[in-house]
Amino acid sequence: MEELKKLAAKEALRYIDDDMIIGLGTGSTTAYFIQMLGKKLMTEELEDVYGIPTSHQSRLLALESGIPVVTLDEVDAIDIAVDGADEVDPHLNLIKGRGAALTMEKIIEYRAGTFIVLVDESKLVEYLGQRVPVPIEVIPAAWRAIKEELEVFNATAELRMGVKKDGPVITDNGNFILDAKFIKIEDPLDMEIELNNIPGVVENGIFADIADIILVGTKEGVKKLER
Amino acid sequence: MEELKKLAAKEALRYIDDDMIIGLGTGSTTAYFIQMLGKKLMTEELEDVYGIPTSHQSRLLALESGIPVVTLDEVDAIDIAVDGADEVDPHLNLIKGRGAALTMEKIIEYRAGTFIVLVDESKLVEYLGQRVPVPIEVIPAAWRAIKEELEVFNATAELRMGVKKDGPVITDNGNFILDAKFIKIEDPLDMEIELNNIPGVVENGIFADIADIILVGTKEGVKKLER
Amino acid sequence: MEELKKLAAKEALRYIDDDMIIGLGTGSTTAYFIQMLGKKLMTEELEDVYGIPTSHQSRLLALESGIPVVTLDEVDAIDIAVDGADEVDPHLNLIKGRGAALTMEKIIEYRAGTFIVLVDESKLVEYLGQRVPVPIEVIPAAWRAIKEELEVFNATAELRMGVKKDGPVITDNGNFILDAKFIKIEDPLDMEIELNNIPGVVENGIFADIADIILVGTKEGVKKLER
Amino acid sequence: MEELKKLAAKEALRYIDDDMIIGLGTGSTTAYFIQMLGKKLMTEELEDVYGIPTSHQSRLLALESGIPVVTLDEVDAIDIAVDGADEVDPHLNLIKGRGAALTMEKIIEYRAGTFIVLVDESKLVEYLGQRVPVPIEVIPAAWRAIKEELEVFNATAELRMGVKKDGPVITDNGNFILDAKFIKIEDPLDMEIELNNIPGVVENGIFADIADIILVGTKEGVKKLER
Repeated sequence: MEELKKLAAKEALRYIDDDMIIGLGTGSTTAYFIQMLGKKLMTEELEDVYGIPTSHQSRLLALESGIPVVTLDEVDAIDIAVDGADEVDPHLNLIKGRGAALTMEKIIEYRAGTFIVLVDESKLVEYLGQRVPVPIEVIPAAWRAIKEELEVFNATAELRMGVKKDGPVITDNGNFILDAKFIKIEDPLDMEIELNNIPGVVENGIFADIADIILVGTKEGVKKLER
Repeated sequence: MEELKKLAAKEALRYIDDDMIIGLGTGSTTAYFIQMLGKKLMTEELEDVYGIPTSHQSRLLALESGIPVVTLDEVDAIDIAVDGADEVDPHLNLIKGRGAALTMEKIIEYRAGTFIVLVDESKLVEYLGQRVPVPIEVIPAAWRAIKEELEVFNATAELRMGVKKDGPVITDNGNFILDAKFIKIEDPLDMEIELNNIPGVVENGIFADIADIILVGTKEGVKKLER
Repeated sequence: MEELKKLAAKEALRYIDDDMIIGLGTGSTTAYFIQMLGKKLMTEELEDVYGIPTSHQSRLLALESGIPVVTLDEVDAIDIAVDGADEVDPHLNLIKGRGAALTMEKIIEYRAGTFIVLVDESKLVEYLGQRVPVPIEVIPAAWRAIKEELEVFNATAELRMGVKKDGPVITDNGNFILDAKFIKIEDPLDMEIELNNIPGVVENGIFADIADIILVGTKEGVKKLER
Repeated sequence: MEELKKLAAKEALRYIDDDMIIGLGTGSTTAYFIQMLGKKLMTEELEDVYGIPTSHQSRLLALESGIPVVTLDEVDAIDIAVDGADEVDPHLNLIKGRGAALTMEKIIEYRAGTFIVLVDESKLVEYLGQRVPVPIEVIPAAWRAIKEELEVFNATAELRMGVKKDGPVITDNGNFILDAKFIKIEDPLDMEIELNNIPGVVENGIFADIADIILVGTKEGVKKLER
């Protein structure tokens, strides 16, 4: 599995050029990409590339890897964003958020000129919700009300609990995560909008219509899906 | 003006009964209501009434006024919510958020059995956006991107700056406020949904289709608008 | 082990009377106490007891268990606080914070009339720092500087990383945790003060001179240590 | 007054060299410094200077002024920090925090090789507490308890209220500010430590023993105080 992730990460590097601003996703697959990008900068194969991290995790890793970081309000445009995903459907819609960084990921990736997604083939599904729940970032006071209201969509939601802290996981923005298991998400774009309009929802892990390229690590090499 | 606000607040009290859970809005008009409600509890004209505050401000005022407070995740339902508004259109759509508490206000008021709005007559407008900007609560990192993207809607947005602190106003949730001046909001419900779907927007100050009763303080007494 | 924890929790219950305000600690040992206290309220063996939680975890558990919760700014005094600890030295000084709730725990327990600590015998040490690191809650921007400065105290600190979120654990207050392994803490009170005075430290997990009673679950029954 | 502030700011510029990392304080006096520094970078009189902001305010101003910004965890050392103060005593102890940025200011300035303070002569006092209160950043839940406990020090504290938001001012870290009026602070270093050790206090506005140079704008020119 790790080999397939590395394959995809390596392929993504080919899209990066000098003088680019790169959105840096969160998670184990993107971590390979960040480390490889750092090496290219160290060896000066690439120059004047800046990263915009989507989480404390990717920021710390970028700094360790020698990638200078900037933030969204310092730049005029993001050239490319690179991130992983938990599910990818045939129309390139995604579920993201296992790492609890979905809000900043969507903030950055929505605004990237090209959004490249790195996955191994186990993440390809027929429809969103097939295997994983949709993480939803919520204002803490509203968690229970939203959990109940999600039943309208036939979703069963659980408050995500911490392991290295007692009680709920807290996001980088100070909020809670509800993991909402849907039976089947028929219309991802519609569901994404409906969820965001529930008062107390900060952002949700459906990323409809924003991925441009999916690089899939397979045993036969990297497969490229495009819109 | 203060007299008209008090008139409306007093009228709202008539909707409150024993054993109710009341959403407590934020701002100067609601403050009269909270103080009057506290008195009714002190004199035992009302009993077993609990308040759910929508901000640090209304929470502190409720405690001072002798109203026991609970939070949304402790109750099964909110009977009535009472709050002010910055603009009310003829279809009872609202703009709220001058006090920067819009996110928690919407979380509470959206879930109230009956949402009662208290205003003086200066707040009645022909269409939303006629006089005041729409406050939008945003994740700090996204403020500049969102400010620029609002131009698509012909809106001019300003980052709200503090007076008793240097730099931007920080909300009770730790975010920034963009005050977005629209020329005219044609379809409030549609605009509310569109704004909420911009990555980085936590919530916005358009409250479409959720007010049930408007109590308007006028020189001729309290006028009641209803859907 | 769980049996010893339950023994201590049960013993703590004997200190609770009607009309008390109880600080509710965080963690697995205190969880037994909270559940037992809830039962006493359900069966009306105890009446008019209110809990002040020290974390989202203990708050949610208290509500599930039927204990009405209040907050520190609603009460005039806290009668008793009950919590666990990671280490207890012979002078009843503590290390706490494995659950990342140390700041709110200290806020509550420092102000309790009586602070009762529940542990099993494995937590008794000869000196603080013997087995566990001291968790230190820090403002995120300062984490690396503080980590380095702790070397002055011969402490090796690690940024605590999440399991159910990528990147660092975020506390209920939105901060990071540094786990600082000291060789030996000679003077706990002095070290507690020194750590708190480092700019960027919000609070640290040394609780010197504030525990009143330690209830130790042992195979021979509950042992009581007192100052 | 503004002229005296500008004089001091201009003098501070003389300490800045190429390749320096500069801590950028918050407030109106430092704002002049930031703008002047930006001009020197624009005209290339200075090169490779990076700023570390102490607040959203100074960060936004630095970016507008053309100063590239970094954060504390990206650098190995801060060469110089420049900031204003609300009071300066004859031993160069300070009260700071009128702009509510005291925590990040102390985090940065404590770690600067040289900390330069810019004031006009109205800020010079005989002893700390003579004219202004000490701002104390506190965890919101603890505000009322701390307010009462400050009476032990003969201090009268007020919760700082917002103007462009209803309810308390929220700091960039999401906390409250208590403004504590002392009769006279006899030993600033001792009081700074005592306040920081109160559970719930994040940081306080006494900056004892950390200023290296005070530049005082007077009608007779800039006066320099040094330790």
